[in-house]
Amino acid sequence: MSSAGVGEIMDTLGREAVAAARLLARDEGSRRNAALVEAAAVLRRRQDGILEANALDLAAAREAGLSAAMVDRLRLDPARVESMAVGLEQIAALPDPVGRVLAEWTRPNGLVIQRVSVPLGVIGIIYESRPNVTADAGALCLKSGNAVILRGGTDSAHSSRAIHACLVEGLEAAGLPVTAIQLVPTQDRAAVGYMLAGMTDYLDVVVPRGGKSLVARVQQEARVPVIGHLEGNCHVYVDRAADLNMAREIVLNAKLRRTGICGAAETLLVDRGCVATHLAPLVKALLDAGCQVRGDGAVRAVDSRVVPATEDDWYTEYLDAVIAARVVDGVAEAIEHIAKYGSAHTESIVTEDAAAAQRFLAEVDSAIVLHNASTQFADGGEFGMGAEIGISTDRFHARGPVGLEQLVSYKYVVRGSGQVRPG
Amino acid sequence: MSSAGVGEIMDTLGREAVAAARLLARDEGSRRNAALVEAAAVLRRRQDGILEANALDLAAAREAGLSAAMVDRLRLDPARVESMAVGLEQIAALPDPVGRVLAEWTRPNGLVIQRVSVPLGVIGIIYESRPNVTADAGALCLKSGNAVILRGGTDSAHSSRAIHACLVEGLEAAGLPVTAIQLVPTQDRAAVGYMLAGMTDYLDVVVPRGGKSLVARVQQEARVPVIGHLEGNCHVYVDRAADLNMAREIVLNAKLRRTGICGAAETLLVDRGCVATHLAPLVKALLDAGCQVRGDGAVRAVDSRVVPATEDDWYTEYLDAVIAARVVDGVAEAIEHIAKYGSAHTESIVTEDAAAAQRFLAEVDSAIVLHNASTQFADGGEFGMGAEIGISTDRFHARGPVGLEQLVSYKYVVRGSGQVRPG
Repeated sequence: MSSAGVGEIMDTLGREAVAAARLLARDEGSRRNAALVEAAAVLRRRQDGILEANALDLAAAREAGLSAAMVDRLRLDPARVESMAVGLEQIAALPDPVGRVLAEWTRPNGLVIQRVSVPLGVIGIIYESRPNVTADAGALCLKSGNAVILRGGTDSAHSSRAIHACLVEGLEAAGLPVTAIQLVPTQDRAAVGYMLAGMTDYLDVVVPRGGKSLVARVQQEARVPVIGHLEGNCHVYVDRAADLNMAREIVLNAKLRRTGICGAAETLLVDRGCVATHLAPLVKALLDAGCQVRGDGAVRAVDSRVVPATEDDWYTEYLDAVIAARVVDGVAEAIEHIAKYGSAHTESIVTEDAAAAQRFLAEVDSAIVLHNASTQFADGGEFGMGAEIGISTDRFHARGPVGLEQLVSYKYVVRGSGQVRPG
Repeated sequence: MSSAGVGEIMDTLGREAVAAARLLARDEGSRRNAALVEAAAVLRRRQDGILEANALDLAAAREAGLSAAMVDRLRLDPARVESMAVGLEQIAALPDPVGRVLAEWTRPNGLVIQRVSVPLGVIGIIYESRPNVTADAGALCLKSGNAVILRGGTDSAHSSRAIHACLVEGLEAAGLPVTAIQLVPTQDRAAVGYMLAGMTDYLDVVVPRGGKSLVARVQQEARVPVIGHLEGNCHVYVDRAADLNMAREIVLNAKLRRTGICGAAETLLVDRGCVATHLAPLVKALLDAGCQVRGDGAVRAVDSRVVPATEDDWYTEYLDAVIAARVVDGVAEAIEHIAKYGSAHTESIVTEDAAAAQRFLAEVDSAIVLHNASTQFADGGEFGMGAEIGISTDRFHARGPVGLEQLVSYKYVVRGSGQVRPG
């Protein structure tokens, strides 16, 4: 397909989305919820068809030689379809993020000013292989009153189309425009470039969900606002005043509960003040659990299985059973290390010293800072936000878990009785 | 100067700003306030020097043949210097926007989660001729804990340097890094391009303040987040249920109190349901006050002084004593007109009909919607926000008046007692 052809397709999607967004903005929320509940029912009814579509994607993936892990990300089964349906129902049950009075005050001249939440407008989502993103992201955008243009990966194209059809049926049943949730119909890579740079008249924000090459492309090409999800090079700092048992449990969980998520710990920092007591037990526990440890001299000294860490290791998000480990001179040097090497995602301090904890929480400039808890809590669901579209490492608009509250903007509603401005 | 030279200068400013931002983030707020109060005192002490610097700018402006209005924007006098000093003191007296607990909740597992406001980081401000922006924008950024790089216009270069020196002296006196507020030392136009596209590693957001050519350049070139200030094509809709006297006062004030500000009304919409009673008095009042009225057929019919409106007029931000006027079929058509032609800045409805007002306030998708009040209230000061850096027509991060609350981000602080994530 020619790029001009892609442009025409995308412009049409954009115009339809803007029109749908205007209609959604007038809805009271009940129809949006009804659409989600109905879409969940349709997902369950059409389970067989969805799994057949998924089988096509899986066959193509095997033929293309995708890794077992990639194929597993693609795979749907009855439990995963049910889990998508339940997800839609849970999102429907959340409080409406639109129309909330975020602040209200009265001016001396009698003007009553309200800051009221409104949808962002039209959201573009660019994602890769997981087909469930079609349901999750579509539902979060709809719940927050936004029209959405979904651009899924080629690997999951059949699955995404089948899931998208269920969402559309939900919209129809609820009397909402079916163009509120659109799926880009072409897998032409030019469509991604066009979303990033050519749709400034239509898109209010783009949310990329994917690996480093997508993120790099977005940073290079985007001319629309982006809610970015960069890497999570997360740290656990074990302070001299840490309870050893607690530290061990947190370090093991932060690193190994799941190694492939952005909140997994990638570097362990141990206070020189507790090297004698804490370092060996922590390092041995990691090694015994099957984790490779890449350490500085002090860490290597406690166990011969530790391999040397290079400068690159401190920057690396392994997303694997590998951890970098070093000794630091107390909380101050831990903060410095994180400032230099970290990605400002999620960091944890383990300590019984309230002053050290407070300093770490205040001075570490990350989206999420924790005291005596695992970095793997970096998750919108664990935060009680109900659902999330990802974890933002941006500082602008949304930071940390991106849930419904982060998918809205606001307007000011001012009520007067004839006031004019003097002077 | 070569562009390479500009890049080196700007990179140095960027690195210094990032380092300053880290130091500012540790400050409790008292030193930031002390710096502002001291800068105000220095401004007063150095009034003569500032006026001398301003005289150089004024002489150059006259030589370059700038319009009288432009020269007036540039001009400082003792009252304007005093007003800048008072402005700094007022900003110092505002509540600290940093470190506020924006939300707090406890999870079933005992984790206590706080969302805490933090500075955005490093802000770039690109502005044109008004020298007072140097003081206002510098002070707002500092108060909100941000480091700032100011890039003022060539016309006001001497004045801005003199004002900037006062801010630096305030920082020094308070023990804060002098690099917290930096002024780009070169007037090379390449510096603007470099701020927009070359400083993604240093700048967290850029705020452009200027005319259409600057805004267009920002939209074209920016690779960093932007808080944009586009045009204000503001509307007043006079409903059939409007009190005529109130409508007249509001229309005159919205259009004519000051014609050059972004909240000035540019189009008058009058409900067909009150044409017989309201249209002629409103149009004649505008004409009698010296305003040109460009009208549709119905408006031209009430007074021969009305000139015909063209399609372009409905899109135009005059910033002058000119208004476009037409008759619409009630609140529904008023909303449609605004959706098609408006800039989503500020719109007002005048009516005694609560249902019509509610519909207008809900369905007009503008940053500020008013009922029975003048559009000229679109101003951070009038909103009680203390000071503003402009009015954002973006939907992302900041919308409407951009005050201290809009110049911060947030982080999540999570306190536990050893929690690890199950499953």
